[in-house]
Amino acid sequence: MKAFLPLLLVSVLLPLMPPVMAEEAASKLTPSTVIEQSTASDWRQPEQANLMYLEIGEQRIVFELSATFAPNHVQNLKTLVGQSYFDGLAVIRSQDNYVAQWGDPAEDEATLRSLGDAKERIPHEFYRAKKGLNINTINSRDAYADEVGFVEGFAVGSDKDSKHARAWLTHCYGALGVGRGMELDSGNSSSLYMVTGHAPRHLDRNVTLIGRVIEGAEALSSLPRGTGPLGFYESADELTKIDRVRMGDTVPEAEQLHIEIMRTDTETFQNYVTARTHRLDDWFADPTGKIEVCNVGVPSRPVTQIPASE
Amino acid sequence: MKAFLPLLLVSVLLPLMPPVMAEEAASKLTPSTVIEQSTASDWRQPEQANLMYLEIGEQRIVFELSATFAPNHVQNLKTLVGQSYFDGLAVIRSQDNYVAQWGDPAEDEATLRSLGDAKERIPHEFYRAKKGLNINTINSRDAYADEVGFVEGFAVGSDKDSKHARAWLTHCYGALGVGRGMELDSGNSSSLYMVTGHAPRHLDRNVTLIGRVIEGAEALSSLPRGTGPLGFYESADELTKIDRVRMGDTVPEAEQLHIEIMRTDTETFQNYVTARTHRLDDWFADPTGKIEVCNVGVPSRPVTQIPASE
Repeated sequence: MKAFLPLLLVSVLLPLMPPVMAEEAASKLTPSTVIEQSTASDWRQPEQANLMYLEIGEQRIVFELSATFAPNHVQNLKTLVGQSYFDGLAVIRSQDNYVAQWGDPAEDEATLRSLGDAKERIPHEFYRAKKGLNINTINSRDAYADEVGFVEGFAVGSDKDSKHARAWLTHCYGALGVGRGMELDSGNSSSLYMVTGHAPRHLDRNVTLIGRVIEGAEALSSLPRGTGPLGFYESADELTKIDRVRMGDTVPEAEQLHIEIMRTDTETFQNYVTARTHRLDDWFADPTGKIEVCNVGVPSRPVTQIPASE
Repeated sequence: MKAFLPLLLVSVLLPLMPPVMAEEAASKLTPSTVIEQSTASDWRQPEQANLMYLEIGEQRIVFELSATFAPNHVQNLKTLVGQSYFDGLAVIRSQDNYVAQWGDPAEDEATLRSLGDAKERIPHEFYRAKKGLNINTINSRDAYADEVGFVEGFAVGSDKDSKHARAWLTHCYGALGVGRGMELDSGNSSSLYMVTGHAPRHLDRNVTLIGRVIEGAEALSSLPRGTGPLGFYESADELTKIDRVRMGDTVPEAEQLHIEIMRTDTETFQNYVTARTHRLDDWFADPTGKIEVCNVGVPSRPVTQIPASE
């Protein structure tokens, strides 16, 4: 008898049935059946120009960036990547149950790599106006935000509607953030971190988030932890070298990640959230009936056939 | 300029000031100052008989067990440990952003290690009666539980007060759980897991939790992820061997972990939660004012002088 726990991420299945269903029916679905019953239009392929490929030895981590929430930090990051700024730099920090961070390991100003055409300071993008966003709100009692939901695949917190209501990317596992110093405009995308533990949501609206991981998180989350304060590595030989960082539109097609991510502005995604809320798989003694935004998980699946038109 | 993020765990500081403070004053404290102002009576040393030492190569992970929530599973675990059941078994699973699990890697019944005097089946201990517990409830809007708080250092969820109100250990990072099959009584402490990612709170009340990590989590959380379904390792040479598991009262004193954990039934701990809620450190642009139970973190610190009476 091998004891087990249920699947975290659903398996990848082809669409078999139409997605027409009442809410009542939806509540009887499992995450797997929602995916089975999805149609092609429930999925999107992220634009390669918005994907950042981080290469560490044999491993590759791919992030999707959000210009909707952090246009200026994303632009600066693209400028840095275009200059091969990160190539040869390093993962400088791994703090257990918190973040892995990478950038320039140089200890003093004199030996820091030049930012070239990128800006050194950018006004923070900790949040943006809620107005103008199509937020797919979910039914969740959130500890930190008035409301939570999804925008273009990203988990989002927001204020209740008001003239100055804000919305922001949340620090769920795999969120990609911009390290900063004490000053609010001191982040510039040259030092980045990924959340590798329980969502540190108290950082929401205190740091600019610019994206989230869509492949290869384990390459960062399973790194040895740094033994210095804040999980910084204490000696040069502990650093993990960054071999290369590229934007997807400069990666040869055969090397690109071809992936479909479930659209979050669809009825199918609403059904998926419902199925993750009411855990009807046989294993569950208590099907919960509750959900937290960082536990939803937006489904993705490999694209097995690349459309000829791409 | 090295970009940084704030400390997750506060540094260890000696008591300097008395803990007398009004709530108003408390709200102006940082986590560090609460610890500075604590007194000896705000801390406890866990009983060695309730500590489980898991040895993997050069690394050691220490868990505190909770007989308050899972008396029968804890008793069975102690029986197994007393028989050296785990020595030579293995970590069989590491699923990213979820759990690491260990136990008997044998694939078929015939070669499974005998449980000896331990029971093969135990009625589940997914929750217990809330009555009789002294829960230090915290002010948090929880996605999964009516109320959340702490009991004896453990994060706890509970129903609102009623005749049949329940309380349960929550699946925060570092929680120690008992793997089970489809049947509710099929867990017996011979296969254990530790949460290594964002709290999978939908497992609350579906699995018996028996403790939490108090030292060395990174030895499990930074293991390479398994590539099989559910993060199981696919070949024998990927397994991480468990060298030895002991209960603390059989560990020579010089090798024991001597640690103090902040008591959670104290005004000082309430102040600590308040300080973690209102982030007044200069770095914070937005001091949050909110907290989630898995983001509190119960402070601990090494005992530098072992009392002669121990």
